[in-house]
Amino acid sequence: MTMSEEGPRFKLTVAYDGRPYEGWQSQESGETIQDHLLRALREIDPRIPKIEGSGRTDAGVHALGQVAHFNASPDSRMDAWAWLKALNTRLPRTIRVMASEAAPADFHARFDATGKTYRYEIFTGPVLSPLRYGLAWHFYRRMDLETVRQAMALYVGRHDFAAFAANRGDPATNPTDTHRTIYEATLTGDGEDLAFTFYGNGFMYRMVRLLVGATVYCGEGKISLDDIRALLTGSKAKKSPLAAPPDGLYLVRVHYGVGSLPEAGIT
Amino acid sequence: MTMSEEGPRFKLTVAYDGRPYEGWQSQESGETIQDHLLRALREIDPRIPKIEGSGRTDAGVHALGQVAHFNASPDSRMDAWAWLKALNTRLPRTIRVMASEAAPADFHARFDATGKTYRYEIFTGPVLSPLRYGLAWHFYRRMDLETVRQAMALYVGRHDFAAFAANRGDPATNPTDTHRTIYEATLTGDGEDLAFTFYGNGFMYRMVRLLVGATVYCGEGKISLDDIRALLTGSKAKKSPLAAPPDGLYLVRVHYGVGSLPEAGIT
Repeated sequence: MTMSEEGPRFKLTVAYDGRPYEGWQSQESGETIQDHLLRALREIDPRIPKIEGSGRTDAGVHALGQVAHFNASPDSRMDAWAWLKALNTRLPRTIRVMASEAAPADFHARFDATGKTYRYEIFTGPVLSPLRYGLAWHFYRRMDLETVRQAMALYVGRHDFAAFAANRGDPATNPTDTHRTIYEATLTGDGEDLAFTFYGNGFMYRMVRLLVGATVYCGEGKISLDDIRALLTGSKAKKSPLAAPPDGLYLVRVHYGVGSLPEAGIT
Repeated sequence: MTMSEEGPRFKLTVAYDGRPYEGWQSQESGETIQDHLLRALREIDPRIPKIEGSGRTDAGVHALGQVAHFNASPDSRMDAWAWLKALNTRLPRTIRVMASEAAPADFHARFDATGKTYRYEIFTGPVLSPLRYGLAWHFYRRMDLETVRQAMALYVGRHDFAAFAANRGDPATNPTDTHRTIYEATLTGDGEDLAFTFYGNGFMYRMVRLLVGATVYCGEGKISLDDIRALLTGSKAKKSPLAAPPDGLYLVRVHYGVGSLPEAGIT
């Protein structure tokens, strides 16, 4: 197929409650976010071949600003707002197209992404609200927040994050270069509600959950700040001691273009 | 049964996500909050006869601070914290005992309540977040917020709220005196997220939803402030034009004792 045969391209910003789904990536079950989006697109136009996201999210992980692109058929007259409305009418209420934009023909949700922001939410009180079940990690244990802040500061910069990457089922899909740059790693909240925010140029499989797991272990005193420093040397021998559960993880934003990098960004 | 045969009484503060349940009040289906609580109590001690709440909430209505009481068996040694833990282990994750206290033998969740606070949440933007589905009323229409504030101010004080009471299935259960006092009625938020808060000495069946319905109709200009004034005269001929859906309604707090009334409370 040549470019001239393709219809107009659209960029969608998609939010979802991850609890009912088997993650982003299409599966035979058909119960993933990508499957639901493609089914909704094909209900509108059966000729639409595919929809591509900025990257996967695991089962149970939420998104406020996942980004995906698709091509309408060449003869389609629907504009961006019409796609948003038509899709939201057909999607489950726990998946929503939050924004829709006409995109250049060569825009690619994954290849053009220059960074991502994730947030991880923890509730440290004795009883998690029934309205936050599956939406935060219920972690009713003591942590030293100053130590947590110091651990978070260690992640900022370019490091070999091999200790913070889980293997996928097929080892051939593991990245050969495990260096990534984290621009920001912050802790907010100081009562029972805590949020860890990570903004970086790329995140490997389960990387945020492995970072959060090591951080809370450090906050509890189970491992030291020096142990975290050792994990950041890229030695393949050591791994983060814990992956936090998917419940608290939110893909907040996918960044595109240099304009989305911080003014004094580390690169 | 004499008082001496009763075991220690406990006051529970219960929060729930109303979406999966058929309201508070026990039903044959067994799928109400009260049913789930009684089943959990009887798993711990099969002799527990009942649990009483401060009042009903409808199907789909949420609670942050519903209050209920029950009597343990006379020989029970469990303290308040043990009940909280044992109940939360057995309850669905969308129902949580948030607090548990030993209560006087004559404490009654319903008869002793001196007031209640309800909040009603509205989202007025074009796309409701998938994380708030069923947790807010999605109301994508223009409202004049100054008019809404003026309408809310009309409710404060002692009025005959007959126009804001729905009939239950059995008319015999309808209240004969439809006067109630609202101490506070406020609008918060000014962007896409709005919240109506009502604090009063009592609320009749669907009263908050009928108040919110009339208020947004007034904000849209479908009815006038004078129409609202007319609804507050107690004429049985007129009814609030709209009951807001259960989605946005939260029972925030049940008040007990004079200490919970505002200093300069209208009574």
